[in-house]
Amino acid sequence: MNNFHFYSPTEFVFGRGSENEAGELVKKYGGSKVLVHFGGGSAVRSGLLGRVTASLTAAGVPYIELGGVKPNPRDTLVYEGIELCRREGIDFILCVGGGSVIDSAKAIAAGVLYDGDFWDFYSGKAAVRKALPVGTVLTIAAAGSEGSGDTVVTQEATGLKRGAGGDALRPRFSIMNPELTCTLPPFHTACGAADIMAHVFERYFTNTTEVEITDRLCEAVLCTMVKEAPRVIADPNNYDARANIMWAGTVAHTNIVGVGRDQDWNSHNIEHELSGLYDVAHGAGLAVIMPAWMEFVMPHNPMRFAQVATRVWGCAMDFEHPENTALAGIRCFRRFLREIGLPINFAELGAREEDIPVLVQKLGLGEGRTGGFVHLNSEDVAQIYRIAAHADV
Amino acid sequence: MNNFHFYSPTEFVFGRGSENEAGELVKKYGGSKVLVHFGGGSAVRSGLLGRVTASLTAAGVPYIELGGVKPNPRDTLVYEGIELCRREGIDFILCVGGGSVIDSAKAIAAGVLYDGDFWDFYSGKAAVRKALPVGTVLTIAAAGSEGSGDTVVTQEATGLKRGAGGDALRPRFSIMNPELTCTLPPFHTACGAADIMAHVFERYFTNTTEVEITDRLCEAVLCTMVKEAPRVIADPNNYDARANIMWAGTVAHTNIVGVGRDQDWNSHNIEHELSGLYDVAHGAGLAVIMPAWMEFVMPHNPMRFAQVATRVWGCAMDFEHPENTALAGIRCFRRFLREIGLPINFAELGAREEDIPVLVQKLGLGEGRTGGFVHLNSEDVAQIYRIAAHADV
Repeated sequence: MNNFHFYSPTEFVFGRGSENEAGELVKKYGGSKVLVHFGGGSAVRSGLLGRVTASLTAAGVPYIELGGVKPNPRDTLVYEGIELCRREGIDFILCVGGGSVIDSAKAIAAGVLYDGDFWDFYSGKAAVRKALPVGTVLTIAAAGSEGSGDTVVTQEATGLKRGAGGDALRPRFSIMNPELTCTLPPFHTACGAADIMAHVFERYFTNTTEVEITDRLCEAVLCTMVKEAPRVIADPNNYDARANIMWAGTVAHTNIVGVGRDQDWNSHNIEHELSGLYDVAHGAGLAVIMPAWMEFVMPHNPMRFAQVATRVWGCAMDFEHPENTALAGIRCFRRFLREIGLPINFAELGAREEDIPVLVQKLGLGEGRTGGFVHLNSEDVAQIYRIAAHADV
Repeated sequence: MNNFHFYSPTEFVFGRGSENEAGELVKKYGGSKVLVHFGGGSAVRSGLLGRVTASLTAAGVPYIELGGVKPNPRDTLVYEGIELCRREGIDFILCVGGGSVIDSAKAIAAGVLYDGDFWDFYSGKAAVRKALPVGTVLTIAAAGSEGSGDTVVTQEATGLKRGAGGDALRPRFSIMNPELTCTLPPFHTACGAADIMAHVFERYFTNTTEVEITDRLCEAVLCTMVKEAPRVIADPNNYDARANIMWAGTVAHTNIVGVGRDQDWNSHNIEHELSGLYDVAHGAGLAVIMPAWMEFVMPHNPMRFAQVATRVWGCAMDFEHPENTALAGIRCFRRFLREIGLPINFAELGAREEDIPVLVQKLGLGEGRTGGFVHLNSEDVAQIYRIAAHADV
């Protein structure tokens, strides 16, 4: 087991009606003038935004609103938010939405207290040392941003999608009412499930040995998703299944399932080029890439894949040929993804095999390598795209 | 799933040499004059206390020392600590030790900022709203106090052992170096393992349905203990096994394995009378009581016991007679406890069946009932003690 730091100071307020606690929570964490940050009209139309702002008013906390966050949040709105916060003397950002809204809020929070261009955090020129406090009202179970110190923002002029992180960006509180996710369409629900599972798998496949507790916690989240995701697809109003998925999504990304080991994150890297080129949902891209990546890297450590196959997918262990068990687990994963309505190959995703050279070039490895579990060069990545192109179950 | 709050703001610094970060961490969390609180001589003899105070000195943080915490920490030393902190203008308490030392430090931290008698928190007369910040350097994997807001203190004059809790008592940071636990004797290592597993089981057996994620996280900790505890008993210097147990002990008690459900805690309640009467180790008492409690309450929900039997102990499911699987799991638990060197009945513990009426009377249920999973009256508790008296594998 590696040495590690683990720090997850966010207060999670979970359950029915929890959005009504927003005002009191903002006050508890020192907010006296709030920016309410959100995305499109669904938070308005559903009445959620009204309930949240009513709770601010009831708590005597003044606020201003800034909506319009798009999926893959843009730097342009972040600049606008930073200006607005400075002009209005905002000291707390409350965001209402999914990962994109939360990531945009974190960018604004860091930018307000920074003397230079906030993009410095995303280009790697500066580290986030301080930020305005952020609270979240989560509406989508997927990104895990409600419990993480991470944020991803896209630079509109260049299309660059970059991440930044720091403990200062961890939300002070996150309000999580599973009912708010019941109106999410099945496809987006499934995309969220794939993203949650990817956050676990990227931590699971490691060369660090002897981290049983973290392995088992990873498997706990995966087993939960295997049980609950098909239930919400079959019955979108199943509160308990929604609740289990929502909390699993947070547990998957506070890093409690990742401590003590090296991590990989190559499925995310390789997927980003797909969703960048075709504007497909991140979770759908992951459904295509993750099993392909697994097939490609499995020979590096068949026993690790056999472990997840037996512990998560319930495959019988083939003690003479562990790699058969490993492959059986990957097949189970693909069948599961198809069952919940996700694409599992290029055609179903709307991607084209002839674009693979473009995808590889955009990843920009050059002569370099990427990843922690297996260090991949450009040809390896091309091969993973080719496996993904033709995958079936 | 029930609504819940989850809040675990402690920064965990885990791994070899982490005790040398104590000084910088105290400074990071605002300490400018520190009380170093510890127990007996082992922290001194091992050189640990010296390393910790050297790191305070290196960070330029002055400190004073207060040792002498005993297992089942006493109110008398807490009063002394409160006086000392006030007189010396202490603003941070750094404790070096196991659960007893941490619990004593928490009591002092709350008492310093309270106008009345600190025992008010333990007698239920007052709630802990604020406390001096506490940091820990953990030396025993067992109590989970390094990641919890709980504290248990014994009133020396009356022998009353009482608990208090509150988010203000959650440590700011906890330093966890598994190497520090390698010198712990096998029996105490095993007692710690039993305590960790009890913290999970008390949360696992619930009447709340549909909390798959929490169930799975519970099972993750239990599976880890089943693998790692026998390894450290066989090889006390196995760093990785020590590390997995140490982190499992924290995960077991931040309440992340307990959210969203009612909990029970009757094994702890029933055990406290045993360790109170005979001065046996808490973990040893739990090894005798927990399986007995399980046998008694199993008929209330055999499927729940069958679940843990199959998922944790690897028992084959008897679909015609799930209660047989349930009982097989409890047998596996007792065999495991004996394997790691713990007592499993009254004779091995040094308790006497003829004292059962005294134990029941001390529990003080009168005509009342206790517990969450099954509400037990005095006769039920007596029966559990009788099962424990005669248990074997």
